[in-house]
Amino acid sequence: MQIACLVYEGLTALDIMGPYEVLCRLPGCELRFVARRKGEVRTDTGVFGIVVDHAMAELPHPDVFVVPGGLEGTFAAARDEETLAWVRGAHATSRFSTSVCTGALILGAAGLLDGLRATTHWAAAPLLEAHGATYTEERVVREGRILTAAGVSAGIDMALHLAAEIADEQTARTIQLAIEYDPQPPFDSGAPSKAGEALVAAARAALTQSAGSMRSGLQRAPRR
Amino acid sequence: MQIACLVYEGLTALDIMGPYEVLCRLPGCELRFVARRKGEVRTDTGVFGIVVDHAMAELPHPDVFVVPGGLEGTFAAARDEETLAWVRGAHATSRFSTSVCTGALILGAAGLLDGLRATTHWAAAPLLEAHGATYTEERVVREGRILTAAGVSAGIDMALHLAAEIADEQTARTIQLAIEYDPQPPFDSGAPSKAGEALVAAARAALTQSAGSMRSGLQRAPRR
Repeated sequence: MQIACLVYEGLTALDIMGPYEVLCRLPGCELRFVARRKGEVRTDTGVFGIVVDHAMAELPHPDVFVVPGGLEGTFAAARDEETLAWVRGAHATSRFSTSVCTGALILGAAGLLDGLRATTHWAAAPLLEAHGATYTEERVVREGRILTAAGVSAGIDMALHLAAEIADEQTARTIQLAIEYDPQPPFDSGAPSKAGEALVAAARAALTQSAGSMRSGLQRAPRR
Repeated sequence: MQIACLVYEGLTALDIMGPYEVLCRLPGCELRFVARRKGEVRTDTGVFGIVVDHAMAELPHPDVFVVPGGLEGTFAAARDEETLAWVRGAHATSRFSTSVCTGALILGAAGLLDGLRATTHWAAAPLLEAHGATYTEERVVREGRILTAAGVSAGIDMALHLAAEIADEQTARTIQLAIEYDPQPPFDSGAPSKAGEALVAAARAALTQSAGSMRSGLQRAPRR
Protein backbone atom coordinates (compact mmCIF):
# COMPACT_ATOMS: atom_id res chain seq x y z
CA MET A 1 0.00 0.00 0.00
CA GLN A 2 1.70 3.13 -1.27
CA ILE A 3 0.49 6.55 -0.08
CA ALA A 4 1.65 9.74 -1.80
CA CYS A 5 1.37 13.14 -0.12
CA LEU A 6 1.65 15.84 -2.78
CA VAL A 7 3.64 18.91 -1.86
CA TYR A 8 3.99 22.03 -3.97
CA GLU A 9 5.33 25.56 -3.64
CA GLY A 10 2.95 27.64 -1.51
CA LEU A 11 0.94 24.84 0.12
CA THR A 12 -0.59 25.33 3.57
CA ALA A 13 1.50 23.10 5.83
CA LEU A 14 -1.21 21.72 8.13
CA ASP A 15 -3.25 20.59 5.11
CA ILE A 16 -0.73 17.84 4.45
CA MET A 17 0.76 17.41 7.94
CA GLY A 18 -2.59 16.41 9.45
CA PRO A 19 -3.21 13.49 7.07
CA TYR A 20 0.48 12.59 7.08
CA GLU A 21 0.55 12.23 10.86
CA VAL A 22 -2.39 9.81 10.71
CA LEU A 23 -1.53 7.83 7.58
CA CYS A 24 2.18 7.32 8.37
CA ARG A 25 1.00 5.18 11.28
CA LEU A 26 -0.92 2.70 9.11
CA PRO A 27 0.81 -0.67 9.42
CA GLY A 28 2.26 -1.92 6.16
CA CYS A 29 1.91 1.39 4.38
CA GLU A 30 4.70 3.16 2.57
CA LEU A 31 4.07 6.90 2.75
CA ARG A 32 6.10 9.30 0.65
CA PHE A 33 6.07 13.02 0.02
CA VAL A 34 6.21 13.84 -3.69
CA ALA A 35 6.61 17.10 -5.58
CA ARG A 36 7.30 18.10 -9.17
CA ARG A 37 11.00 17.82 -8.39
CA LYS A 38 12.62 16.44 -5.30
CA GLY A 39 14.26 18.96 -3.01
CA GLU A 40 12.99 21.90 -1.00
CA VAL A 41 9.49 23.32 -1.33
CA ARG A 42 8.38 26.41 0.64
CA THR A 43 5.02 26.67 2.38
CA ASP A 44 2.56 29.54 1.88
CA THR A 45 4.02 31.66 4.68
CA GLY A 46 7.62 31.12 3.58
CA VAL A 47 8.54 30.42 7.22
CA PHE A 48 10.11 27.05 6.47
CA GLY A 49 10.74 24.57 3.69
CA ILE A 50 9.75 20.94 3.28
CA VAL A 51 12.39 18.64 1.83
CA VAL A 52 10.76 16.12 -0.48
CA ASP A 53 12.68 12.98 -1.46
CA HIS A 54 10.67 11.94 -4.52
CA ALA A 55 9.63 13.54 -7.77
CA MET A 56 5.97 12.82 -8.56
CA ALA A 57 7.11 10.97 -11.69
CA GLU A 58 8.71 8.34 -9.42
CA LEU A 59 5.30 7.48 -7.92
CA PRO A 60 2.88 7.56 -10.84
CA HIS A 61 0.42 5.05 -9.35
CA PRO A 62 0.09 5.33 -5.58
CA ASP A 63 -2.77 3.41 -3.97
CA VAL A 64 -3.79 6.57 -2.12
CA PHE A 65 -2.86 10.19 -2.68
CA VAL A 66 -3.54 13.37 -0.75
CA VAL A 67 -3.61 16.83 -2.36
CA PRO A 68 -3.30 19.74 0.09
CA GLY A 69 -4.50 23.30 -0.40
CA GLY A 70 -3.05 26.76 -0.06
CA LEU A 71 -3.56 30.20 -1.55
CA GLU A 72 -1.80 31.47 -4.70
CA GLY A 73 0.37 28.36 -4.76
CA THR A 74 -2.70 26.21 -5.16
CA PHE A 75 -4.01 28.28 -8.04
CA ALA A 76 -0.62 27.89 -9.73
CA ALA A 77 -0.59 24.13 -9.12
CA ALA A 78 -4.12 23.88 -10.52
CA ARG A 79 -2.82 25.43 -13.77
CA ASP A 80 0.31 23.30 -13.96
CA GLU A 81 -0.07 20.63 -16.63
CA GLU A 82 2.54 18.34 -15.10
CA THR A 83 0.74 18.36 -11.76
CA LEU A 84 -2.67 17.82 -13.37
CA ALA A 85 -1.34 14.95 -15.49
CA TRP A 86 0.06 13.31 -12.37
CA VAL A 87 -3.26 13.68 -10.55
CA ARG A 88 -5.18 12.20 -13.48
CA GLY A 89 -2.75 9.33 -13.86
CA ALA A 90 -2.72 8.59 -10.15
CA HIS A 91 -6.51 8.72 -9.98
CA ALA A 92 -6.85 6.31 -12.91
CA THR A 93 -5.49 3.50 -10.75
CA SER A 94 -5.82 4.70 -7.15
CA ARG A 95 -7.89 3.09 -4.45
CA PHE A 96 -8.53 6.51 -2.89
CA SER A 97 -7.96 10.00 -4.32
CA THR A 98 -8.22 12.70 -1.69
CA SER A 99 -7.88 16.41 -1.04
CA VAL A 100 -7.80 18.78 1.89
CA CYS A 101 -9.00 22.40 1.78
CA THR A 102 -8.41 24.09 -1.58
CA GLY A 103 -6.58 20.97 -2.71
CA ALA A 104 -10.04 20.15 -4.10
CA LEU A 105 -9.48 22.88 -6.68
CA ILE A 106 -6.57 20.85 -8.04
CA LEU A 107 -8.71 17.71 -8.22
CA GLY A 108 -11.36 19.87 -9.89
CA ALA A 109 -8.94 21.32 -12.42
CA ALA A 110 -7.85 17.76 -13.24
CA GLY A 111 -11.49 16.99 -14.04
CA LEU A 112 -12.09 14.58 -11.18
CA LEU A 113 -15.00 16.35 -9.50
CA ASP A 114 -17.31 17.16 -12.40
CA GLY A 115 -20.87 16.37 -11.38
CA LEU A 116 -19.88 15.24 -7.89
CA ARG A 117 -20.51 16.50 -4.38
CA ALA A 118 -17.31 17.75 -2.78
CA THR A 119 -16.00 20.04 -0.10
CA THR A 120 -13.16 22.53 0.24
CA HIS A 121 -12.28 25.51 2.43
CA TRP A 122 -15.56 27.39 3.01
CA ALA A 123 -14.15 30.54 1.40
CA ALA A 124 -13.36 28.65 -1.81
CA ALA A 125 -16.83 27.14 -2.39
CA PRO A 126 -17.59 29.18 -5.56
CA LEU A 127 -14.19 28.26 -7.03
CA LEU A 128 -14.95 24.60 -6.44
CA GLU A 129 -18.34 24.88 -8.12
CA ALA A 130 -16.66 26.42 -11.17
CA HIS A 131 -15.20 22.93 -11.73
CA GLY A 132 -18.66 21.36 -11.94
CA ALA A 133 -18.76 20.10 -8.37
CA THR A 134 -21.51 20.77 -5.86
CA TYR A 135 -20.03 22.30 -2.71
CA THR A 136 -21.27 20.39 0.29
CA GLU A 137 -20.82 21.90 3.73
CA GLU A 138 -19.61 18.75 5.44
CA ARG A 139 -16.33 17.97 7.16
CA VAL A 140 -15.51 15.10 4.80
CA VAL A 141 -17.36 14.26 1.60
CA ARG A 142 -17.03 10.86 0.00
CA GLU A 143 -18.05 10.11 -3.56
CA GLY A 144 -16.98 6.58 -4.39
CA ARG A 145 -13.21 6.54 -4.04
CA ILE A 146 -12.82 10.33 -3.90
CA LEU A 147 -12.69 11.95 -0.46
CA THR A 148 -12.55 15.71 -0.09
CA ALA A 149 -12.06 17.43 3.26
CA ALA A 150 -12.99 20.95 4.38
CA GLY A 151 -10.40 23.61 5.27
CA VAL A 152 -6.89 23.06 6.65
CA SER A 153 -7.48 21.10 9.88
CA ALA A 154 -10.16 18.86 8.31
CA GLY A 155 -7.49 16.62 6.83
CA ILE A 156 -7.03 14.94 10.21
CA ASP A 157 -10.66 13.86 10.29
CA MET A 158 -10.51 12.78 6.65
CA ALA A 159 -7.40 10.69 7.26
CA LEU A 160 -9.05 8.87 10.16
CA HIS A 161 -11.96 7.94 7.87
CA LEU A 162 -9.41 6.78 5.32
CA ALA A 163 -7.44 4.77 7.89
CA ALA A 164 -10.58 2.88 8.82
CA GLU A 165 -11.25 2.12 5.15
CA ILE A 166 -7.69 1.08 4.33
CA ALA A 167 -7.15 -0.95 7.50
CA ASP A 168 -10.08 -1.22 9.91
CA GLU A 169 -11.84 0.81 12.58
CA GLN A 170 -9.72 -0.63 15.39
CA THR A 171 -6.55 0.51 13.64
CA ALA A 172 -7.97 3.97 13.01
CA ARG A 173 -8.99 4.29 16.66
CA THR A 174 -5.50 3.21 17.74
CA ILE A 175 -4.00 5.93 15.58
CA GLN A 176 -6.44 8.49 17.00
CA LEU A 177 -5.24 7.58 20.49
CA ALA A 178 -1.58 7.58 19.46
CA ILE A 179 -1.89 11.18 18.28
CA GLU A 180 -4.17 11.97 21.24
CA TYR A 181 -6.76 13.42 18.91
CA ASP A 182 -9.37 14.35 21.47
CA PRO A 183 -9.97 17.88 20.21
CA GLN A 184 -11.09 20.51 22.70
CA PRO A 185 -10.98 23.86 20.95
CA PRO A 186 -11.50 26.67 23.46
CA PHE A 187 -14.04 28.31 21.14
CA ASP A 188 -16.72 27.08 18.77
CA SER A 189 -16.01 29.23 15.74
CA GLY A 190 -14.56 26.66 13.38
CA ALA A 191 -17.29 26.81 10.73
CA PRO A 192 -19.06 29.78 9.11
CA SER A 193 -22.45 28.65 10.44
CA LYS A 194 -21.11 28.76 14.00
CA ALA A 195 -18.92 31.86 13.71
CA GLY A 196 -21.37 34.51 12.58
CA GLU A 197 -21.06 37.12 9.83
CA ALA A 198 -18.53 39.44 11.45
CA LEU A 199 -16.02 36.67 12.02
CA VAL A 200 -16.58 35.31 8.53
CA ALA A 201 -15.71 38.71 7.08
CA ALA A 202 -12.65 39.01 9.33
CA ALA A 203 -11.43 35.51 8.45
CA ARG A 204 -11.95 36.16 4.75
CA ALA A 205 -9.79 39.27 4.97
CA ALA A 206 -7.17 37.48 7.08
CA LEU A 207 -6.94 34.61 4.61
CA THR A 208 -5.94 36.85 1.76
CA GLN A 209 -3.60 38.94 3.88
CA SER A 210 -1.89 36.64 6.36
CA ALA A 211 0.34 34.64 4.10
CA GLY A 212 1.41 37.70 2.16
CA SER A 213 2.16 39.82 5.20
CA MET A 214 3.99 36.94 6.83
CA ARG A 215 6.20 36.55 3.81
CA SER A 216 6.99 40.24 3.57
CA GLY A 217 7.77 40.36 7.29
CA LEU A 218 10.46 37.75 7.01
CA GLN A 219 14.06 38.62 6.59
CA ARG A 220 15.06 35.10 5.99
CA ALA A 221 18.03 33.46 4.38
CA PRO A 222 17.93 33.39 0.59
CA ARG A 223 16.19 30.38 -0.90
CA ARG A 224 18.29 27.56 -2.13
CA MET B 1 6.09 39.92 19.16
CA GLN B 2 8.55 37.20 18.20
CA ILE B 3 7.47 33.56 18.25
CA ALA B 4 10.02 30.75 18.00
CA CYS B 5 9.04 27.22 17.01
CA LEU B 6 11.82 24.86 18.03
CA VAL B 7 12.63 22.06 15.61
CA TYR B 8 15.07 19.21 16.23
CA GLU B 9 16.09 15.93 14.64
CA GLY B 10 13.38 13.34 15.23
CA LEU B 11 10.49 15.61 16.22
CA THR B 12 6.89 14.60 15.50
CA ALA B 13 5.82 16.93 12.71
CA LEU B 14 2.23 17.66 13.76
CA ASP B 15 3.41 18.70 17.24
CA ILE B 16 4.89 21.85 15.76
CA MET B 17 2.76 22.22 12.62
CA GLY B 18 -0.46 22.54 14.61
CA PRO B 19 0.67 25.52 16.72
CA TYR B 20 2.53 27.01 13.75
CA GLU B 21 -0.61 27.04 11.60
CA VAL B 22 -2.47 28.96 14.31
CA LEU B 23 0.27 31.32 15.52
CA CYS B 24 1.55 32.33 12.07
CA ARG B 25 -1.85 34.01 11.60
CA LEU B 26 -1.50 36.32 14.60
CA PRO B 27 -1.35 39.89 13.28
CA GLY B 28 1.93 41.63 14.02
CA CYS B 29 3.76 38.47 15.03
CA GLU B 30 7.04 37.33 13.59
CA LEU B 31 7.13 33.55 13.68
CA ARG B 32 10.36 31.67 13.00
CA PHE B 33 11.46 28.06 13.05
CA VAL B 34 14.71 27.62 14.94
CA ALA B 35 17.02 24.63 15.41
CA ARG B 36 20.53 24.04 16.76
CA ARG B 37 21.82 24.85 13.29
CA LYS B 38 19.95 26.22 10.34
CA GLY B 39 19.35 23.81 7.49
CA GLU B 40 17.49 20.55 7.16
CA VAL B 41 16.09 18.61 10.10
CA ARG B 42 14.37 15.23 9.67
CA THR B 43 11.14 14.29 11.42
CA ASP B 44 10.68 11.11 13.49
CA THR B 45 9.50 9.02 10.54
CA GLY B 46 12.27 10.22 8.24
CA VAL B 47 9.67 10.74 5.49
CA PHE B 48 10.61 14.37 4.91
CA GLY B 49 12.82 17.15 6.16
CA ILE B 50 12.04 20.60 7.52
CA VAL B 51 14.30 23.42 6.37
CA VAL B 52 14.92 25.83 9.21
CA ASP B 53 16.26 29.30 8.45
CA HIS B 54 17.53 30.26 11.89
CA ALA B 55 19.90 28.80 14.44
CA MET B 56 18.45 29.00 17.96
CA ALA B 57 21.35 31.27 18.93
CA GLU B 58 19.92 33.91 16.57
CA LEU B 59 16.71 34.10 18.62
CA PRO B 60 17.79 33.87 22.25
CA HIS B 61 14.83 35.80 23.64
CA PRO B 62 11.59 35.17 21.77
CA ASP B 63 8.40 36.44 23.38
CA VAL B 64 6.83 33.02 22.93
CA PHE B 65 8.37 29.65 22.17
CA VAL B 66 6.92 26.26 21.37
CA VAL B 67 8.76 22.99 22.03
CA PRO B 68 7.38 19.96 20.16
CA GLY B 69 7.70 16.31 21.12
CA GLY B 70 8.77 13.13 19.44
CA LEU B 71 10.27 9.79 20.39
CA GLU B 72 14.02 9.05 20.60
CA GLY B 73 14.77 12.48 19.11
CA THR B 74 13.08 14.14 22.06
CA PHE B 75 15.06 12.14 24.57
CA ALA B 76 18.24 13.19 22.76
CA ALA B 77 17.16 16.85 22.71
CA ALA B 78 16.35 16.65 26.42
CA ARG B 79 19.95 15.61 27.05
CA ASP B 80 21.48 18.22 24.76
CA GLU B 81 23.06 21.02 26.79
CA GLU B 82 22.85 23.55 23.98
CA THR B 83 19.11 22.96 23.60
CA LEU B 84 18.51 23.09 27.35
CA ALA B 85 20.52 26.30 27.68
CA TRP B 86 18.45 27.89 24.93
CA VAL B 87 15.20 26.82 26.61
CA ARG B 88 16.33 28.22 29.96
CA GLY B 89 17.50 31.47 28.41
CA ALA B 90 14.35 31.89 26.38
CA HIS B 91 12.17 31.14 29.39
CA ALA B 92 14.01 33.70 31.51
CA THR B 93 12.52 36.51 29.42
CA SER B 94 9.56 34.97 27.58
CA ARG B 95 5.96 35.97 27.91
CA PHE B 96 4.86 32.37 27.28
CA SER B 97 6.91 29.17 27.30
CA THR B 98 5.04 26.23 25.81
CA SER B 99 5.30 22.59 24.85
CA VAL B 100 3.29 20.02 22.94
CA CYS B 101 3.31 16.29 23.66
CA THR B 102 6.68 15.00 24.92
CA GLY B 103 8.11 18.46 24.32
CA ALA B 104 7.23 18.83 28.01
CA LEU B 105 10.10 16.46 28.77
CA ILE B 106 12.48 19.04 27.31
CA LEU B 107 10.95 21.79 29.45
CA GLY B 108 11.23 19.38 32.37
CA ALA B 109 14.87 18.56 31.68
CA ALA B 110 15.57 22.30 31.55
CA GLY B 111 14.14 22.55 35.07
CA LEU B 112 11.06 24.57 34.14
CA LEU B 113 8.37 22.21 35.44
CA ASP B 114 9.63 21.31 38.91
CA GLY B 115 6.72 21.43 41.34
CA LEU B 116 4.20 22.40 38.65
CA ARG B 117 1.17 20.76 37.11
CA ALA B 118 1.79 19.91 33.48
CA THR B 119 0.67 17.64 30.68
CA THR B 120 2.33 15.62 27.94
CA HIS B 121 1.50 12.64 25.75
CA TRP B 122 -0.47 10.22 27.97
CA ALA B 123 2.11 7.49 27.42
CA ALA B 124 4.89 9.74 28.75
CA ALA B 125 3.25 10.72 32.03
CA PRO B 126 5.77 8.86 34.27
CA LEU B 127 8.68 10.42 32.38
CA LEU B 128 7.20 13.87 32.99
CA GLU B 129 6.78 13.19 36.70
CA ALA B 130 10.47 12.19 36.90
CA HIS B 131 11.15 15.90 36.30
CA GLY B 132 9.19 16.91 39.40
CA ALA B 133 5.98 17.84 37.59
CA THR B 134 2.54 16.52 38.40
CA TYR B 135 1.00 14.98 35.28
CA THR B 136 -2.47 16.40 34.78
CA GLU B 137 -4.82 14.70 32.36
CA GLU B 138 -6.06 17.85 30.67
CA ARG B 139 -5.81 19.00 27.08
CA VAL B 140 -3.89 22.15 27.97
CA VAL B 141 -2.40 22.96 31.36
CA ARG B 142 -1.44 26.49 32.28
CA GLU B 143 0.82 27.37 35.19
CA GLY B 144 1.52 31.07 35.05
CA ARG B 145 3.26 31.70 31.76
CA ILE B 146 3.97 28.02 31.04
CA LEU B 147 1.47 26.16 28.87
CA THR B 148 1.86 22.45 28.22
CA ALA B 149 -0.37 20.55 25.80
CA ALA B 150 -1.24 16.86 25.64
CA GLY B 151 -0.14 14.58 22.79
CA VAL B 152 0.58 15.55 19.15
CA SER B 153 -2.74 17.11 18.00
CA ALA B 154 -3.27 19.02 21.27
CA GLY B 155 -0.96 21.77 20.10
CA ILE B 156 -3.75 23.21 17.96
CA ASP B 157 -5.97 23.68 21.01
CA MET B 158 -3.06 25.08 23.01
CA ALA B 159 -2.21 27.58 20.29
CA LEU B 160 -5.79 28.87 20.18
CA HIS B 161 -5.64 29.51 23.93
CA LEU B 162 -2.34 31.27 23.37
CA ALA B 163 -3.69 33.34 20.47
CA ALA B 164 -6.48 34.61 22.71
CA GLU B 165 -3.93 35.56 25.38
CA ILE B 166 -1.49 37.22 22.99
CA ALA B 167 -4.14 39.05 20.94
CA ASP B 168 -7.75 38.63 22.03
CA GLU B 169 -10.58 36.13 21.80
CA GLN B 170 -11.97 37.64 18.61
CA THR B 171 -8.62 37.18 16.88
CA ALA B 172 -8.33 33.60 18.12
CA ARG B 173 -11.83 32.82 16.88
CA THR B 174 -11.00 34.35 13.49
CA ILE B 175 -7.97 32.09 13.23
CA GLN B 176 -10.06 29.08 14.22
CA LEU B 177 -12.42 29.87 11.37
CA ALA B 178 -9.58 30.55 8.92
CA ILE B 179 -8.20 27.04 9.52
CA GLU B 180 -11.75 25.65 9.68
CA TYR B 181 -11.01 24.01 12.99
CA ASP B 182 -14.40 22.46 13.62
CA PRO B 183 -13.12 19.00 14.52
CA GLN B 184 -15.35 16.02 13.81
CA PRO B 185 -13.32 12.89 14.43
CA PRO B 186 -15.22 9.82 13.20
CA PHE B 187 -14.43 8.00 16.46
CA ASP B 188 -14.14 8.99 20.11
CA SER B 189 -10.90 7.24 21.05
CA GLY B 190 -8.59 10.20 21.38
CA ALA B 191 -7.86 9.85 25.11
CA PRO B 192 -7.01 6.78 27.23
CA SER B 193 -10.13 7.23 29.37
CA LYS B 194 -12.31 7.04 26.24
CA ALA B 195 -10.41 4.38 24.34
CA GLY B 196 -10.36 1.45 26.77
CA GLU B 197 -7.52 -0.82 27.83
CA ALA B 198 -7.12 -2.84 24.65
CA LEU B 199 -6.66 0.25 22.50
CA VAL B 200 -4.30 1.81 25.03
CA ALA B 201 -2.08 -1.29 24.84
CA ALA B 202 -2.23 -1.28 21.03
CA ALA B 203 -1.41 2.43 20.82
CA ARG B 204 1.46 2.03 23.26
CA ALA B 205 2.95 -0.70 21.09
CA ALA B 206 2.37 1.29 17.91
CA LEU B 207 4.06 4.37 19.37
CA THR B 208 7.32 2.56 19.95
CA GLN B 209 7.18 0.69 16.65
CA SER B 210 5.69 3.01 14.04
CA ALA B 211 8.45 5.54 13.63
CA GLY B 212 11.14 2.89 13.63
CA SER B 213 9.39 0.66 11.11
CA MET B 214 8.58 3.65 8.92
CA ARG B 215 12.21 4.67 8.84
CA SER B 216 13.47 1.17 8.05
CA GLY B 217 10.86 0.83 5.29
CA LEU B 218 12.12 3.89 3.45
CA GLN B 219 14.61 3.65 0.67
CA ARG B 220 15.11 7.33 0.48
CA ALA B 221 17.83 9.56 -0.83
CA PRO B 222 20.86 9.91 1.45
CA ARG B 223 20.64 12.72 3.98
CA ARG B 224 22.36 15.94 3.17
